[in-house]
Amino acid sequence: MAKNEFVKEIADIETDFPQWYTDVVLKTKLVDYGPVKGTMVIRPYGYAIWEHIQSELDRRFKQMGVENAYFPMLIPMSFLTKEAEHVEGFAPEVAVVTHAGGAKLEEPLVVRPTSETIIGHMFGKWVESWRDLPLRQNQWCNVMRWEKTTRPFLRTSEFLWQEGHSVYETGEEAEAATLQMLACYADFCKNVLCMPVLTGRKTEKEKFAGAVATYGMEAMMHDGKSLQAGTTHYMGQNFAKAFGVQFTGREGTLQYGYTMSYGVSTRLIGALIMTHGDARGLVLPPPVAPFEVVIVPIAQKKEGVLEATHVLKEALEKAGIRVKLDDSDNSPGWKFNEWEMKGVPVRIELGPRDIEAGKMLVCRRDTLEKAEYALGDVEAVSALLETIGRDMYSRAKARMESRIVEADTLEALLAGVEGGNFVRAGWCGERACEDKVKEFAQATARVFDETHTMGTCVCCGKKAAHTLFFARAY
Amino acid sequence: MAKNEFVKEIADIETDFPQWYTDVVLKTKLVDYGPVKGTMVIRPYGYAIWEHIQSELDRRFKQMGVENAYFPMLIPMSFLTKEAEHVEGFAPEVAVVTHAGGAKLEEPLVVRPTSETIIGHMFGKWVESWRDLPLRQNQWCNVMRWEKTTRPFLRTSEFLWQEGHSVYETGEEAEAATLQMLACYADFCKNVLCMPVLTGRKTEKEKFAGAVATYGMEAMMHDGKSLQAGTTHYMGQNFAKAFGVQFTGREGTLQYGYTMSYGVSTRLIGALIMTHGDARGLVLPPPVAPFEVVIVPIAQKKEGVLEATHVLKEALEKAGIRVKLDDSDNSPGWKFNEWEMKGVPVRIELGPRDIEAGKMLVCRRDTLEKAEYALGDVEAVSALLETIGRDMYSRAKARMESRIVEADTLEALLAGVEGGNFVRAGWCGERACEDKVKEFAQATARVFDETHTMGTCVCCGKKAAHTLFFARAY
Repeated sequence: MAKNEFVKEIADIETDFPQWYTDVVLKTKLVDYGPVKGTMVIRPYGYAIWEHIQSELDRRFKQMGVENAYFPMLIPMSFLTKEAEHVEGFAPEVAVVTHAGGAKLEEPLVVRPTSETIIGHMFGKWVESWRDLPLRQNQWCNVMRWEKTTRPFLRTSEFLWQEGHSVYETGEEAEAATLQMLACYADFCKNVLCMPVLTGRKTEKEKFAGAVATYGMEAMMHDGKSLQAGTTHYMGQNFAKAFGVQFTGREGTLQYGYTMSYGVSTRLIGALIMTHGDARGLVLPPPVAPFEVVIVPIAQKKEGVLEATHVLKEALEKAGIRVKLDDSDNSPGWKFNEWEMKGVPVRIELGPRDIEAGKMLVCRRDTLEKAEYALGDVEAVSALLETIGRDMYSRAKARMESRIVEADTLEALLAGVEGGNFVRAGWCGERACEDKVKEFAQATARVFDETHTMGTCVCCGKKAAHTLFFARAY
Repeated sequence: MAKNEFVKEIADIETDFPQWYTDVVLKTKLVDYGPVKGTMVIRPYGYAIWEHIQSELDRRFKQMGVENAYFPMLIPMSFLTKEAEHVEGFAPEVAVVTHAGGAKLEEPLVVRPTSETIIGHMFGKWVESWRDLPLRQNQWCNVMRWEKTTRPFLRTSEFLWQEGHSVYETGEEAEAATLQMLACYADFCKNVLCMPVLTGRKTEKEKFAGAVATYGMEAMMHDGKSLQAGTTHYMGQNFAKAFGVQFTGREGTLQYGYTMSYGVSTRLIGALIMTHGDARGLVLPPPVAPFEVVIVPIAQKKEGVLEATHVLKEALEKAGIRVKLDDSDNSPGWKFNEWEMKGVPVRIELGPRDIEAGKMLVCRRDTLEKAEYALGDVEAVSALLETIGRDMYSRAKARMESRIVEADTLEALLAGVEGGNFVRAGWCGERACEDKVKEFAQATARVFDETHTMGTCVCCGKKAAHTLFFARAY
């Protein structure tokens, strides 16, 4: 049968997950490789997912009072050097424009790897009084970081993201905003991507170059590795001082603002693929699926079948459901496989006998369960889509929770990450121990765990100052 | 009175239009200069206009079957040279990345000035059969063209735009699509920007580098100069041959596709400012205005006033109207001036006496007319916004039509463009005559006029092969 032939086209998810990922993203036409090494083309099926991510996040940002803007992509090289840690972190991976308009430039220009510097410069021009604060702007744009090893969505030299930047009067407000945005991201991951995340502060070693504190959210991929799905950064006055973001305060004195920033990128698409995918390919969360429902006509040349599928499609669309009607010349079996691989949450099969009986066969992509519904029962399909989203989240959450183990020794930590787990472990707070874990177990500190307390450092055995989640990571 | 003081801050629109433009775009916080010469920052008030332009156009494209995608920004230098005219046109103004990741690149990479080449390359990979056609993709992105003289929105080294690219089986289909998209653009300008345009083909001299034919739409600015507001290009097989966009046709033979492309940019924001603006500043078309209505409370500290303005705001928002309630500490006079300069289509004043009388004072920005409406009459406000849009279009159209003159001689053409007109004139078809017009009158051929026939060439006096609109242009 075609189904088995078809599945063979994708590498086995359990034994060769990296190849499964590559097969899936290419064969479902989410993405293709660009002509320049390390670049990707986001194809319509992938871009549609990004559009849903954008519109959902954008709505949330605007509700919080954030305004969109657009800042230039080219940043004077000298800006990067104004914040000492920042230049150290980003200089090695920037792309540099040295020539333009047929001539060599006086100062090389950096293609933004992130925009704290240029936005800091502009905020410095705009902010005058405490009445101008908080100033909260966001941009949706492309950024570039020259990476050695690249993979579509996960790590590419150019990617799309949003970066939000805010200035507050006080450090307390800016820190609260950093945590508030982390919570916004985690809620988005839960309710829109159906993807559970662990959230928390990052260690000094893992923090953003130039930040006082970085907070991240970590999602567990199918292979048990962690993927950093988004970060928020509290900058203190570091960038405000570097770029002169000063304001006249309530008492009439001139003071520096406190800034924070936050970003998520097209990486989220890689995250949801590797969280939900299965042996047959993609399993897309309904809220971001380009099509929530695909209708496959059975015996479509028989009188009345195509008409009935069109009526059904219109009824579903009227209820706000995104529908694909596949009335191509391919066989139903071919279509089942194609749309299963492409991860459409619900497939509806409709043939002459169904129509006669006033029924339709409704198939869930996530569980592969089938059930007969009354033909045209739009409300039941809507409800099913919600159920699918909730179930996808619950399964992913149960899976992640079942794969959190604790370790008191480096050996146990190594065994944990090799087994595809997140490992909770104590840490003395010394960078040397954090480095040692990486060397010994190829695992990094993902986020602080504020909910548990481990007694001793997993590396040196001294009293633990913090409890961390360690994992191998993308 | 504050009003007069305030207007003084903007240069006089009649005597110093360039300075008026600069004053208006900066003081209304639409835009600011970026740190690199020739770049702009689009501030929230300007970006909100762009978001409305995007969402309206995007909806139209999707209805036509166009899909969004994203292609890499960096293009190998060698791609540009594959289409001979294309490289000649764009090479002088590209920005070039020569270094990345701390090393010199083997091949310099061009920051896209437009994406025909890289999209042609990808389409060449994807297209196999006539069943894959038409292939219609669009991207919203930034592009870069290193310009010598720049002005915010009108001409900047980096700008935002959409570029659509399509492949068809036949030249007839591709040409028809080129004209269809031109009509889509013109309809958008009319109904969304309230801006009339002249549409038509461009001369060889003015066409896109690499196209068989370019079509443009030209709008008349306040000073009578023309602004190219958007273009569509029929490429024939030029790019298909350069990038191997081949498919197996219906008869089983391998053939090259026919391509077309189309784009509009943030330049449209400049166009609508210079079409509708007046001595007091911006006059924004309701469909793209960040706020369609501003509510200014009068004697806002009096009991019940702020409450009443909040109730009104909610009622208007419920009807889908974008509303700003200015309850800041500034005086009503200051607010009137501020929001007039910012071009909000409708201002509603609401004070204790209005509330008592169950009325509100409604002021049109375009005509400065005021009228009393029943308090909370949302439908009347909605209707007024539609009327304002229609009236803005009618006035701009009448003005443009009254400023189209005909010329038989170079002297008459010069007098016409100096008087701030579009000049209809005959042309023999020789490039030498087109060049001469430019030299003599600093005017260029904007588009062919298919509706009128002028007998002789405005330059050489020979029989005219075409009738053209000439104008000075931005």
